[in-house]
Amino acid sequence: MSNAKSLEQLEQKQDFIRRHIGPSPAQMSDMLSALGVSSVEQLMEQTVPASIRLENGLQIGESRTEVETLSYLKSVASKNKVFKSYIGQGYHPTHVPHVILRNVLENPGWYTAYTPYQPEIAQGRLESLLNFQTMSMDLTGLDLASASLLDEATAAAEAMALAKRVAKAKKANSFFIADDVHVQTIDVVKTRAEQFGFDIIIGPAQEAANHDIFGALFQYPTTSGEVVDLTDLIAAVQDKKALACVAADIMALMLLKAPGKLGADVVLGSAQRFGVPMGYGGPHAAFFTTRDKYKRSLPGRIIGVSKDRLGNDALRMAMQTREQHIRREKANSNICTAQVLLANMAAFYAVYHGPEGLKTIAERIHRFADILAAGLKEKGVTLKHDTWFDTITVVAQNKEEVVARAVAAEVNFATNHAGEYSVSVSETTTREDIVELFDIILGEGHGLDVAALDAQISANGSQSIPASLVRDDEVLTHPNFNSYHSETEMLRYIKRLENKDLALNHSMISLGSCTMKLNATAEMIPITWPEFANLHPFCPLDQAEGYQIMIGELHDWLVDITGYDAVSMQPNSGAQGEYAGLIAIRKYHESRGEGHRNVCLIPSSAHGTNPASAQMASMKIVVVDCDKQGNVDMDDLKAKAAEVSENLSCIMITYPSTHGVYEETIRDICDIVHQHGGQVYMDGANMNAQVGVTSPGSIGSDVSHLNLHKTFCIPHGGGGPGVGPIGVKSHLAPFMPNHSVINVPGTSVDNGAVSAAPYGSAAILPISWAYIAMMGSEGLRQATETAIVNANYLAQTLSEHFPILYRGRNDRVAHECIIDLRPLKDATGISEMDVAKRLQDYGFHSPTMSFPVAGTLMVEPTESESKVEIDRFIEAMVAIKGEIEKIASGEWSIEDNPLVNAPHTQADVLSSDWNRAYDRFEAAFPVPSVAKDKFWPTVTRIDDVYGDRNLLCSCPAVDTYRDE
Amino acid sequence: MSNAKSLEQLEQKQDFIRRHIGPSPAQMSDMLSALGVSSVEQLMEQTVPASIRLENGLQIGESRTEVETLSYLKSVASKNKVFKSYIGQGYHPTHVPHVILRNVLENPGWYTAYTPYQPEIAQGRLESLLNFQTMSMDLTGLDLASASLLDEATAAAEAMALAKRVAKAKKANSFFIADDVHVQTIDVVKTRAEQFGFDIIIGPAQEAANHDIFGALFQYPTTSGEVVDLTDLIAAVQDKKALACVAADIMALMLLKAPGKLGADVVLGSAQRFGVPMGYGGPHAAFFTTRDKYKRSLPGRIIGVSKDRLGNDALRMAMQTREQHIRREKANSNICTAQVLLANMAAFYAVYHGPEGLKTIAERIHRFADILAAGLKEKGVTLKHDTWFDTITVVAQNKEEVVARAVAAEVNFATNHAGEYSVSVSETTTREDIVELFDIILGEGHGLDVAALDAQISANGSQSIPASLVRDDEVLTHPNFNSYHSETEMLRYIKRLENKDLALNHSMISLGSCTMKLNATAEMIPITWPEFANLHPFCPLDQAEGYQIMIGELHDWLVDITGYDAVSMQPNSGAQGEYAGLIAIRKYHESRGEGHRNVCLIPSSAHGTNPASAQMASMKIVVVDCDKQGNVDMDDLKAKAAEVSENLSCIMITYPSTHGVYEETIRDICDIVHQHGGQVYMDGANMNAQVGVTSPGSIGSDVSHLNLHKTFCIPHGGGGPGVGPIGVKSHLAPFMPNHSVINVPGTSVDNGAVSAAPYGSAAILPISWAYIAMMGSEGLRQATETAIVNANYLAQTLSEHFPILYRGRNDRVAHECIIDLRPLKDATGISEMDVAKRLQDYGFHSPTMSFPVAGTLMVEPTESESKVEIDRFIEAMVAIKGEIEKIASGEWSIEDNPLVNAPHTQADVLSSDWNRAYDRFEAAFPVPSVAKDKFWPTVTRIDDVYGDRNLLCSCPAVDTYRDE
Repeated sequence: MSNAKSLEQLEQKQDFIRRHIGPSPAQMSDMLSALGVSSVEQLMEQTVPASIRLENGLQIGESRTEVETLSYLKSVASKNKVFKSYIGQGYHPTHVPHVILRNVLENPGWYTAYTPYQPEIAQGRLESLLNFQTMSMDLTGLDLASASLLDEATAAAEAMALAKRVAKAKKANSFFIADDVHVQTIDVVKTRAEQFGFDIIIGPAQEAANHDIFGALFQYPTTSGEVVDLTDLIAAVQDKKALACVAADIMALMLLKAPGKLGADVVLGSAQRFGVPMGYGGPHAAFFTTRDKYKRSLPGRIIGVSKDRLGNDALRMAMQTREQHIRREKANSNICTAQVLLANMAAFYAVYHGPEGLKTIAERIHRFADILAAGLKEKGVTLKHDTWFDTITVVAQNKEEVVARAVAAEVNFATNHAGEYSVSVSETTTREDIVELFDIILGEGHGLDVAALDAQISANGSQSIPASLVRDDEVLTHPNFNSYHSETEMLRYIKRLENKDLALNHSMISLGSCTMKLNATAEMIPITWPEFANLHPFCPLDQAEGYQIMIGELHDWLVDITGYDAVSMQPNSGAQGEYAGLIAIRKYHESRGEGHRNVCLIPSSAHGTNPASAQMASMKIVVVDCDKQGNVDMDDLKAKAAEVSENLSCIMITYPSTHGVYEETIRDICDIVHQHGGQVYMDGANMNAQVGVTSPGSIGSDVSHLNLHKTFCIPHGGGGPGVGPIGVKSHLAPFMPNHSVINVPGTSVDNGAVSAAPYGSAAILPISWAYIAMMGSEGLRQATETAIVNANYLAQTLSEHFPILYRGRNDRVAHECIIDLRPLKDATGISEMDVAKRLQDYGFHSPTMSFPVAGTLMVEPTESESKVEIDRFIEAMVAIKGEIEKIASGEWSIEDNPLVNAPHTQADVLSSDWNRAYDRFEAAFPVPSVAKDKFWPTVTRIDDVYGDRNLLCSCPAVDTYRDE
Repeated sequence: MSNAKSLEQLEQKQDFIRRHIGPSPAQMSDMLSALGVSSVEQLMEQTVPASIRLENGLQIGESRTEVETLSYLKSVASKNKVFKSYIGQGYHPTHVPHVILRNVLENPGWYTAYTPYQPEIAQGRLESLLNFQTMSMDLTGLDLASASLLDEATAAAEAMALAKRVAKAKKANSFFIADDVHVQTIDVVKTRAEQFGFDIIIGPAQEAANHDIFGALFQYPTTSGEVVDLTDLIAAVQDKKALACVAADIMALMLLKAPGKLGADVVLGSAQRFGVPMGYGGPHAAFFTTRDKYKRSLPGRIIGVSKDRLGNDALRMAMQTREQHIRREKANSNICTAQVLLANMAAFYAVYHGPEGLKTIAERIHRFADILAAGLKEKGVTLKHDTWFDTITVVAQNKEEVVARAVAAEVNFATNHAGEYSVSVSETTTREDIVELFDIILGEGHGLDVAALDAQISANGSQSIPASLVRDDEVLTHPNFNSYHSETEMLRYIKRLENKDLALNHSMISLGSCTMKLNATAEMIPITWPEFANLHPFCPLDQAEGYQIMIGELHDWLVDITGYDAVSMQPNSGAQGEYAGLIAIRKYHESRGEGHRNVCLIPSSAHGTNPASAQMASMKIVVVDCDKQGNVDMDDLKAKAAEVSENLSCIMITYPSTHGVYEETIRDICDIVHQHGGQVYMDGANMNAQVGVTSPGSIGSDVSHLNLHKTFCIPHGGGGPGVGPIGVKSHLAPFMPNHSVINVPGTSVDNGAVSAAPYGSAAILPISWAYIAMMGSEGLRQATETAIVNANYLAQTLSEHFPILYRGRNDRVAHECIIDLRPLKDATGISEMDVAKRLQDYGFHSPTMSFPVAGTLMVEPTESESKVEIDRFIEAMVAIKGEIEKIASGEWSIEDNPLVNAPHTQADVLSSDWNRAYDRFEAAFPVPSVAKDKFWPTVTRIDDVYGDRNLLCSCPAVDTYRDE
């Protein structure tokens, strides 16, 4: 037989590339024909300015197969040493319930969903997030919650910002942090305060009210484990017209009186130990609760209950006017990404265990702590405190000896406070572990017996939680926390919610600027390996060699891809990355004695997060105009830059522009800013149109954040997690974030942290690592090119039916395009909202609505969508155009047509009094292809105003809720 | 604080029990009240005859937590040594595509579904199985396929049975097997032939036609790798009016001319290497194709295309009248379970790779074989053959030395033929592996270069596949194999199909006698661990120590649970277990010189598989009557037993009875049979009502099979896999199946095999192991008791609305109950089929229909269903009763009502010409609770007759199919 194929071809080393990229070669060829070009290269020449194209390709190497990649990564992961962690300090080993592990964390139905901006097709995760809020409110004893913040430390920083905004102590500029707050929290809050220009006072908790402050932060229990009644301290702070904030341990709250009951104004903390792996630091969800009266200042997303068009209860994100993208330069928080996937896991953990189960777990932890303490005391060991929930701090002469024994036994204690060490027991601790702890601390032959100690404690009663702080109220009484305790019921509950949500496993989610591409299974597999999942972020670096290798390789690849010199992985969202990048710029200027440089130029087209981030870095924002083509108005830029020259700190600019165009003048923009002594911050949101083709570093930018959850395949998780590393030129590298417990190689010891963990959300970095490894230099470039082909094919095909708003050279768009619906609205009254909702009836998630231009849809198909799927989307848009034309022609009235009534639910189309101008069938199945795989919205269009006026952000009572 | 709970309680060691068992303690208490008893114990006393209750509990020990269980099992698994396997002989390493691994094999949406007896809510897996059949037909070149058989060896045995039935050589009683067929296949076919009374002739393939035969079996390529043109051999066999059967390698068929094109009448083989792990022997799906004219004799399930009520294409199991449960004692196959989950995986593998991808993989394998052979020949090594696809057999003086080097390198060759060894390369083989193979075979320093050898082969062309056998036709041309090659498209295709199917993750599937209980996630996790998944079944026993330990512990637990003395894990389905048990009985009689004993007593209520199995063991079936209460008519039993006393082999009886009742006389039945020298075969289908409460061994039975996929939590997989171990008393133990390659400890070397692999479907035994470990003695008993409580609660509550057909002592049922719909049918014309289909509209899978009594539904809620779910089912049944009453009252006519039109699809209820007597809304949402989580049938009621008359069992052409 003939051997047509070479062995290299037969080996299929590049197989992953065709799996990641949607269009087949034949489809690519069809699209190129439609675009009137003979090759991808020709399209690239037409689209990307020659001046910025990379001369040499990436140096990442060849594509590796999925099998090679996972095999190598497993060998790297196995260099991590998974010691038993008793480090505590905000991170605890936990048992992820298997039913949640498989059906939520490892299930594309949950992890590939987008942020629930289209709530009618997101009621599942909205219900779960409402559970998260209800749980937060119940456990903290406050009446308003959000869902969710990035980690405990940044939540504390948000609490400070909220306090500054709402406290009546308007003149005060100081925020007090008790010295027994977790060190990483102090670190992050200090960084934030420095940028805001607040003073931080650190001291013993009881001294809080000795200062002129607008707020104070306490830890409950303290970082060394003590359980202190905060009632009087809180009252004293409030007497100063300041806000009392409490960082609390969520598990401890099952046994301890709620901080809200002690009077706290804000309670926050990490929900990690509710069934989310430590993951070397993240991602985890932080909870945040406060008083209802502060609702307009609450950072992050609030899920609220409202009504739909038919009067049914319906959930959606409430009061979005508070959020950074609306407030822009008036924002005092830039938080955008939430930790939805992790918040869902924590909420499901509570649903699965229920109040009784959680209390049992908390009591077990506490009992083991009591037993440990009793044994140690019996042997004369000095304990730092008389009270505790789970953490025993030993004041020790022989600390080094004990720690050495611990390490030999593959056990980690918290050792970062001099002269003492702490042992935090957890959900995973067993009798055998307690014996081992005795062996380590006391040496073998101690003769202690766990059962005997337990008997003593049971006989005498435990006094380690002060009587005044024993929780005595009922929590988690809502049926959602009391109905799904068998695995069968739990599985069905998870599935029922999942089925309400449209995710990437159903159809394309072509969100301009959000890059919803394939999250390949092979990329997801490593994150639940125990070697990655079960490391404490503060374990000694020599136990995290696998992480260091993986992060190091990812670092080098990102350096290559961005054209920068160094990358920090610490920021755990894009906005966090912006913030970290601006801090680096500010510190750089300061280091050169130009600390006065504080003006940030921002084009008018910028994403709202840019000005919000600049505001958080106390920069003055000067807006630069855009011309009619959507490009930066060069004259205005020159004028503004000259005007603020002395004080110019930087420009924040997105490339390709937020309009989806490769601006020709980008190099000039960089030059102008540099000429005036400024730095260029290039927003990485649109990196998907740069990788392998150009790079921010080569274009002339100084710093960027990268959205690993966009370009580099970390799934959106239904609204988070995200990861936002920053890449910088070498002159900015010394100013990247460090960490107070783990010294991050390559940064200055003086630099503060922006996230709680040294490497931020380290546990999901393997996703991006695997993506880059499997694509290789060639695949990454092909991905970018295909994204551009897809976007141009879509733009060109749709341009016969809708105006495409902005185009670049040769009338090409970059990786996304803007469909202008304003002319149709003017003609018919049908809005972009109507079109977005009607798309749901066609089985599609709407593209980005009214960003960057009101009245438009911005579509980004990404390289992962096939031509078949893009054609389906085009078919839907064209059919909708036809529907609008029927309104224009008078066949349908503006009050009675399938657009204004969209989306249609099952109950709606089956109602017995249907008397609309259009057919029921037409409402639900407007084109035949929909019938193949109909996705049903579960509520009709939601009334946002009603919900904001009647804010309800916990699970509603059963009668109004469960008989939906 | 007070310490109300003991440390033992806090440790929650028994947590899994409450996760597995559906009803909460409060729900249990409500149900017991409804039953008028004060405790479970009281109900048990009323229900289970005192004479059979176990005096002592099980000896399995305490419940272990999920974490303890998986941790221990991981340590056991790690004792398996996962060597690189080049053993071949029907089992090959493969890469399971990750998107299939996570979204099919590890997804409850696929693995918890039942056999598609309700096709309207099973169109997803039916489409996938149709893909499997299409693939089978395309690759084998024949025009009729089934989906699927248990393994290649049993498929070969089925081919023999088919040949005997249809061959025109009616007088011949011999079946020829070429001596180069896989040894395990020869073994299983011999066992089957012995039972049927056929003679087996084994010899060189070319001698087949020298004998008087009704059929012959060839291997293609042969077990030692040779690729022989079978055209003339097949023709010669057919000249004898015999059938030519070919066992083929599915991957080789991508390159080799289809056996059907060579003239074969039957082609069969394993689909394992299409993306299913070796799993130490199984489960895997076997394909089976033959000529259309033999369709009435085809063993196993055929998926066929038919029409639904509205004329849409709709899939369902075709021609079920061929199957064992209909043919009973006329059956020549007892196959019942298919390997649906594995067939789906193989079909998806083909869908994902497509014809080009599969061909590339096959060519790579072949190229590596060519390179290996070329290198060895260059170094003077003697190869047994001149042709090959993937297997090179070396005729070796230094076999021992080479094999020792291989083992040292953690590499396995096939060594079970004297004076030679074979090396089979696979999809997973790499260049580096070829170099390692040279090192092993030739010793290091051989100087061979893979690239150079490849260049030679490419230059000269490969002759290792004879030119006459090079495949030149197009295969897998259907769009389903050419549309889903990106991971995104594949993921959505899998999801689209999944969403059409109702599985346990949606609602209860209360199939009487099928025990659809929870398949806990923790039980499923180990089966995809590489240590369990990647072992070849013929690897040396010392490499499978982990399996031996796990199987050994499972063995001992099953011995405890059943009251038997020994258990064989080999049978890979319940029917296979019955067959193995009957063989043991037969051999036992023979061993005592009573080989004439050949009468099998079977009560009239028996499952159809019982007589079919007896028929396969050449037993004469004598039916024993049942009385009006559904119990064995003791007088008739005594009379029949006396009548056949001399020749009595055994009785086959189910306990509790197929009517769901604990017959009081079961001990007497055993005694009577024993008095006449017979053995008692107790069908294990209803073991779920025995575990921990009674046992077959203690009751007096001699042998049973256990359905691990019923009582012991192996998921049904949408219609398979199953596992059917047999337990026996010591006198039967010597007669349990053995294996020709791996000697199964404890059995006689002379015993033949019933399955291809020594431990059958070993890879899924960890599921049952984990279930038993996590439940412990206490949990297992509680499960049985709860199943009985649930069934009695359901029976008692429904008895107010429907007659419950059979009851035992104190009017109690066992673990299931029969709802008699005949009176309603007599009164109104509404049939049990109408009720079953209407239940779909309510979101439920119908209970077992018309078994064991026509016109009834048999409901088995199992212990895993909560009272909430049971109440939902009761609500649905009561509402349906109300609907039937409207027909009785004349409000609805018998032609126009929601029952006869059930199930209702979306398109149906939205049709523009709705003019029925009932409302659309009522059709789809008959009770409010349905709206919470509506499950939509995707086709309306299917016309079975049309489909059987117009049999189409491959994917239909696109125009009729894809515009559904």
